[in-house]
Amino acid sequence: MSTYDIIVLGSGPGGYVTAIRASQLGFKTAVIEKESLGGVCLNWGCIPTKALLKSAQVFDYLNHAEDYGLTVKGADKDFGKVIERSRGVADGMSKGVQFLMKKNKIDVIEGFGKLKPGKKVEVEGKEYSADHIIIATGARSRELPNLPQDGKKVIGYREAMTLEKQPKSMIVVGSGAIGVEFAHFYNAMGTEVTIVEFLPNLVPLEDEEVSKQFERSFKKAGIKVMTNSSVEKVDTSGKTVKATVKTKKGEETLEADVVLSAVGIAANIEKIGLEDVGIVTDKGKIMVNDWYQTNIPGYYAIGDVVPGQALAHVASAEGITCVEKIAGMHVEAMDYGNIPGCTYATPEIASVGMTEKQAKEAGYELKVGKFPFSASGKASAAGTKDGFVKVIFDAKYGEWLGCHMIGAGVTDMIAEAVLGRKLETTGHEVLKAVHPHPTMSEAVMEAVADAYDEVIHL
Amino acid sequence: MSTYDIIVLGSGPGGYVTAIRASQLGFKTAVIEKESLGGVCLNWGCIPTKALLKSAQVFDYLNHAEDYGLTVKGADKDFGKVIERSRGVADGMSKGVQFLMKKNKIDVIEGFGKLKPGKKVEVEGKEYSADHIIIATGARSRELPNLPQDGKKVIGYREAMTLEKQPKSMIVVGSGAIGVEFAHFYNAMGTEVTIVEFLPNLVPLEDEEVSKQFERSFKKAGIKVMTNSSVEKVDTSGKTVKATVKTKKGEETLEADVVLSAVGIAANIEKIGLEDVGIVTDKGKIMVNDWYQTNIPGYYAIGDVVPGQALAHVASAEGITCVEKIAGMHVEAMDYGNIPGCTYATPEIASVGMTEKQAKEAGYELKVGKFPFSASGKASAAGTKDGFVKVIFDAKYGEWLGCHMIGAGVTDMIAEAVLGRKLETTGHEVLKAVHPHPTMSEAVMEAVADAYDEVIHL
Repeated sequence: MSTYDIIVLGSGPGGYVTAIRASQLGFKTAVIEKESLGGVCLNWGCIPTKALLKSAQVFDYLNHAEDYGLTVKGADKDFGKVIERSRGVADGMSKGVQFLMKKNKIDVIEGFGKLKPGKKVEVEGKEYSADHIIIATGARSRELPNLPQDGKKVIGYREAMTLEKQPKSMIVVGSGAIGVEFAHFYNAMGTEVTIVEFLPNLVPLEDEEVSKQFERSFKKAGIKVMTNSSVEKVDTSGKTVKATVKTKKGEETLEADVVLSAVGIAANIEKIGLEDVGIVTDKGKIMVNDWYQTNIPGYYAIGDVVPGQALAHVASAEGITCVEKIAGMHVEAMDYGNIPGCTYATPEIASVGMTEKQAKEAGYELKVGKFPFSASGKASAAGTKDGFVKVIFDAKYGEWLGCHMIGAGVTDMIAEAVLGRKLETTGHEVLKAVHPHPTMSEAVMEAVADAYDEVIHL
Repeated sequence: MSTYDIIVLGSGPGGYVTAIRASQLGFKTAVIEKESLGGVCLNWGCIPTKALLKSAQVFDYLNHAEDYGLTVKGADKDFGKVIERSRGVADGMSKGVQFLMKKNKIDVIEGFGKLKPGKKVEVEGKEYSADHIIIATGARSRELPNLPQDGKKVIGYREAMTLEKQPKSMIVVGSGAIGVEFAHFYNAMGTEVTIVEFLPNLVPLEDEEVSKQFERSFKKAGIKVMTNSSVEKVDTSGKTVKATVKTKKGEETLEADVVLSAVGIAANIEKIGLEDVGIVTDKGKIMVNDWYQTNIPGYYAIGDVVPGQALAHVASAEGITCVEKIAGMHVEAMDYGNIPGCTYATPEIASVGMTEKQAKEAGYELKVGKFPFSASGKASAAGTKDGFVKVIFDAKYGEWLGCHMIGAGVTDMIAEAVLGRKLETTGHEVLKAVHPHPTMSEAVMEAVADAYDEVIHL
């Protein structure tokens, strides 16, 4: 029986990052993977979707070349090649993880791992043991009872990024990051897209003003938006799919080539032996403490299988925290109130901390500032004037409670707010940190200035 | 005679921002402008060049559409329309400043202002007085004796952004931000570009590794790069320009339609009455203290006419500092060691703080980290794998001495480093600020991790 210091079950952005950090800290480490190194994120999530969205962005430039003083004849997409490029990027990243495993002397065990009592894992009949076993099995597309996925006409995100033929029409159910990113991609490619959201707003976890702006942009781009609506049933018996949608005004039947179900995810906690070991779960998640220890000593869990935001960067950070604690380092518990979230449609959305509504409900008196990109010189020059930066401060002690951005490139701009909040910055310090001109990032400084009635360009 | 609390001489990003802040603070304010509101930055600098560069970027996408799974039959630029778009953006921004002046009840006095003793300014025969006069007259393209500008064949940045006809070939002299941005723009448009730099590296103020990477990218893009070279003389007598260039290997004669002189700027301190008032200058700049007071009470100077980086955001920040101090607010003196600099060619460059060489020369023991975008998932997906983030820490006390970025979108990413450095962050805090995945900004976190031997993706 092979023995390790640490075995990580799953090689997604939680698992493989955990394994690398473990190896750096001197642990003999193995990672178990049933499919492709890199997990959903690299192979079926974050990375290949960003490749698709990049093609969509460039296609949009092709279609609006005149706005920039340019001319194009015969601009078209080759849907197959767009998909192929995306797969190529994913494969390249997965090979990159393979390289990192080798470089860090991490054993990769291929197959489905099942936990056993006594700090053991069985993989295809073979047993491995470790002092510490870290569960990082991630999550999958959640299925609704009234929206069963057949992989052909009612699909999940996996199929959505490898369709052989571009559908003429598509109904996207759910408007979280996955839903809106695919809605944007397919709409940009020329598919007729309808997005159905149960809650009153698109991207319902975002600040309401962000959601409203996003909805305006989506409608302007030609996407049909149905909020306060739910898909009651689907009929896949014909050539197309017929979806019965319940709206505030009554029922409506939509018809499309394909329905994409993007109604959230479900953690992969089945069949991995949790019950055999006695590991406690609750509401479909594994229960852990601040250091990701389960109730059974020697067993840990991180990433989408534990409570907290189901995001790649959260999984990575949890894994690093987990192994650094095992190594006896002085570690701070993660601050789940300072996790950025990003959506890569057009416009992009990035946010961290509380929405205005949450902050009000928490009883804070607020100073709120907002700066629209329409007033930004860089945005004017780049032709990306949609969107804004909104900041929320506690009026009493000056704490930066939340930062919400919508617009071009904001997913690369939110890090400033994350670091600033971590360092407990005041608005005044953000103001006096000289932001370069002309950049989109000036909007952060100006939004803060607006909160304190010192805004220059409004 | 009209009297004001504050008169600002010049309405560039120094002057107009100063005037707005002054008005916010309750001062009766006027701004004097001889040409267009917004000064060089809005009309002839930052903004219109960014518009040109955006057209160049989109044109590049058109020419590489296949890389993204797209097809284009005939892509072309309409040079006149590209210029027209740029002028339109500049005009829009200038009108925006006009609106801001009105909104903030700032009087705009048109004409050339000349300082008079006794806190007065004369504009076209009319006198205005104020308790505080702030000089913000900016700078212009510097002329070298052996490279006299005739505005036709030997031009400055102003002509370079309004040429009626696209030159077939161009020699750019000087490789600071202005030089390389135009070199990139014209090369992208199809002009044959040679760039001549006196010093050993392009963008010579940047960290040497950034310069080297930038030179590789420029060469790859087809720009002819001549470093350690200087233009000795130009002959404009023929149809083209003949430039005699002294290189390490001897003299060489280059021929081109146009020579663009981008060898720096000269402060506009002539004919504005400095001598009449007795304001002290040194090496072409007005001498001021931490609060931008000149040697004569009641007269202040900010922006390109005073020492310090000649950058729009510096001028704005100086002006705000100046009037806040006049208003009796508690103000901190500006930290010129924490001013970001940005260059918007492809790849973009953004940096703040010391280069590795400067830090070594200052006697620090260093921890240096570097993360290439070739290892970034987002960069792979976006097809922007050129470049890197480099960070420099003091090994002893952990101070973040410098941050140097080259790659796509880095001009919007440097704000994190500026704010972090202002808040005296440690590398460890940057590491533990969870950066969203997948973004280019993760490279900052990874570069810091590299400095401390904790990098994951290398």
